[in-house]
Amino acid sequence: MKNEFIAPSRGFERSEFEQRTGKLQQQMAVQGIDAVFFSTEHEFRYFSGFASQFWQSPTRPWFLVIPAKGQPIAVVPGIGAAGFDDTWIDDVRTWPSPRPEDDGVSLLADTLAEVSKQTRCIGAMLGPETHLRMPIANYQTLQASLNQHDMVDVSEIVRKLRSIKSVAEVDKIRFVCDVTAAGFDFLLENLHAGMTERQACKAMHLEMLRLGADACPYLISASGQGGYDNIIMGPTDRRLDQGDLLIIDTGANFDGYFSDFDRNFAFGDVDRATHDAYEAVYASTEAGLDIAAPGRSTGDVWKAMWSVLEAAGSLGNDVGRMGHGLGMQLTEWPSNVQGGDVILQPGMVLTLEPGMTFAPGKVMVHEENILITEKGCEMLHKRAWEKLPIITR
Amino acid sequence: MKNEFIAPSRGFERSEFEQRTGKLQQQMAVQGIDAVFFSTEHEFRYFSGFASQFWQSPTRPWFLVIPAKGQPIAVVPGIGAAGFDDTWIDDVRTWPSPRPEDDGVSLLADTLAEVSKQTRCIGAMLGPETHLRMPIANYQTLQASLNQHDMVDVSEIVRKLRSIKSVAEVDKIRFVCDVTAAGFDFLLENLHAGMTERQACKAMHLEMLRLGADACPYLISASGQGGYDNIIMGPTDRRLDQGDLLIIDTGANFDGYFSDFDRNFAFGDVDRATHDAYEAVYASTEAGLDIAAPGRSTGDVWKAMWSVLEAAGSLGNDVGRMGHGLGMQLTEWPSNVQGGDVILQPGMVLTLEPGMTFAPGKVMVHEENILITEKGCEMLHKRAWEKLPIITR
Repeated sequence: MKNEFIAPSRGFERSEFEQRTGKLQQQMAVQGIDAVFFSTEHEFRYFSGFASQFWQSPTRPWFLVIPAKGQPIAVVPGIGAAGFDDTWIDDVRTWPSPRPEDDGVSLLADTLAEVSKQTRCIGAMLGPETHLRMPIANYQTLQASLNQHDMVDVSEIVRKLRSIKSVAEVDKIRFVCDVTAAGFDFLLENLHAGMTERQACKAMHLEMLRLGADACPYLISASGQGGYDNIIMGPTDRRLDQGDLLIIDTGANFDGYFSDFDRNFAFGDVDRATHDAYEAVYASTEAGLDIAAPGRSTGDVWKAMWSVLEAAGSLGNDVGRMGHGLGMQLTEWPSNVQGGDVILQPGMVLTLEPGMTFAPGKVMVHEENILITEKGCEMLHKRAWEKLPIITR
Repeated sequence: MKNEFIAPSRGFERSEFEQRTGKLQQQMAVQGIDAVFFSTEHEFRYFSGFASQFWQSPTRPWFLVIPAKGQPIAVVPGIGAAGFDDTWIDDVRTWPSPRPEDDGVSLLADTLAEVSKQTRCIGAMLGPETHLRMPIANYQTLQASLNQHDMVDVSEIVRKLRSIKSVAEVDKIRFVCDVTAAGFDFLLENLHAGMTERQACKAMHLEMLRLGADACPYLISASGQGGYDNIIMGPTDRRLDQGDLLIIDTGANFDGYFSDFDRNFAFGDVDRATHDAYEAVYASTEAGLDIAAPGRSTGDVWKAMWSVLEAAGSLGNDVGRMGHGLGMQLTEWPSNVQGGDVILQPGMVLTLEPGMTFAPGKVMVHEENILITEKGCEMLHKRAWEKLPIITR
């Protein structure tokens, strides 16, 4: 079996966790926050290095407390204690979970009270694009236990921190992007009319795993004569036929980091309008690649890309944005939206995702993954084919 | 390529969604609840049939409103509208998301106000083992908008409903359990000393996908000389060696339904204590299979299983329970815990998961998936090997 890609090393140096935590603590000091707690997988992993697939189980809550100084404290179910041996976390506090009558709430409250004695201000993820991974009733109990404290939102601090990727993070994303691009190349060689969408996706899934992806949590497809009508459903058992346009969009994962891009394929003859739409989203991506650079805003990127689609006769865009941050999650802050005022910085990893309705009920979407560099941006994988690829098998 | 298993049909009949919704509405009537809203993937899918991998993207919230009578109402981002064409939902209300300043909150509040005019009591998932998949700040805004209404917990109603699986649900679980068991058989034939844990897991992952699993979101392993110390981490790059005990625990998925069981393998000679521990967890599972039946409680199951482990010299159990519900999620309510008072009913799908520390730092865990039937229970897949399998390659 060929395996062209050398996977980067797994995990991170201890210094990387120290830096991440130190940067958060700097911002906590500026805002007068004594302690922060996290309940969701990605923040927990970002600051602790604790990487477990056990987040799939919704039964037990997990908490990470970041004090104003020093290392994070894990407040976790007993089942998880041994998992911290390989992390930089020394202070691991456990309770026997599941224990519905008090599933970690009193232990979390005690821990927060212990480390929040100055400003009595506690940070949590309360803002846009977040959720608390704990029962809302337990959050209310926590607030009541800490009624001498204020609870404030730190989601803006955290999303800014996470949006700037380290070299080691970029290496993981670049690797899984390379694997994903190779998966699409494999499809280009192996797709044929008569296959179902599901068979096409399964073939790509297996190939990406074989090439080094750990998993592929997102792998969707849509198809139809000359166009498709959505980009978040499927795959279905629909058989691909002459005249079809097929999109496959995927997020593969390596060591906790995602790729997120798509490719379109035509089967035999498709309308000129379909080719034109493909060329429009390709050109729109070129415009995005030209403009994405430090100092430019997400709104600038949106405008450059949208003007190309508008000139090409776009009837609209139901996606709501044209690209987004990418990293530990399939979609991260920020969004490339009209009027977006987030300023791009070196180290940001973004998707450029132009999309338009080019005929009633027919959408064309394209997506690439880029890194913002000191001077501009660079592709994290092989660029899409300039012309709509045509499968003639 | 061999493919021994015939996959059941995908999705469900419309009548199944009508029944699920009708049963919820019955309980809502009993408790005087005008409307319920859901924000999490599994409840959304259970009542609507909307099945999308797009839940991987954390950016946009999604809501499903169940009125006292009639069909559910989807309150969703515009990107998702087309995905409802294939569901039984006719009333689909959208907003252009992402829109951080009002990401569906006013539309949800308006919809709830429209359908909650009698008791002004609105149900949501607030209790144990749940979370709200929306920013907590938005939930607070929603509560403020609906300040003429009471918000009450419906998690107990929903978990009871979901715990009784239909024939069609059981068919999906049985299929993915068969695929998982075949994956373990494949390992039995292909494991060899010198492989890493990661290689073993990847081989099984590929095999299960090939045999018909859609995905395998949970696939962990642990190993060590004569025992392992946890069951929620890994796989690592640790090389399997003579004298090792290896566990692989996995949750594969077909059409939105999980398997969840494990297998243990010894490499060459391992201590008598390790064999004894394997036989103890095997016998403990037998005790669980003997007792699990309608009318018995989760505490009865726990007690029958634990007494076998205790007699075998168990030093304790950090898992916190010995099995749990299984279905759309890797772990569902109820838990097999000491004193557990949940009464088993036909149609429940459970795991039996005896585990014990049999020497300091050495754990042995076993797991099987069962269906509670009218008279007792049945295995949903091939039973584990009676004796600890020994890999001599």
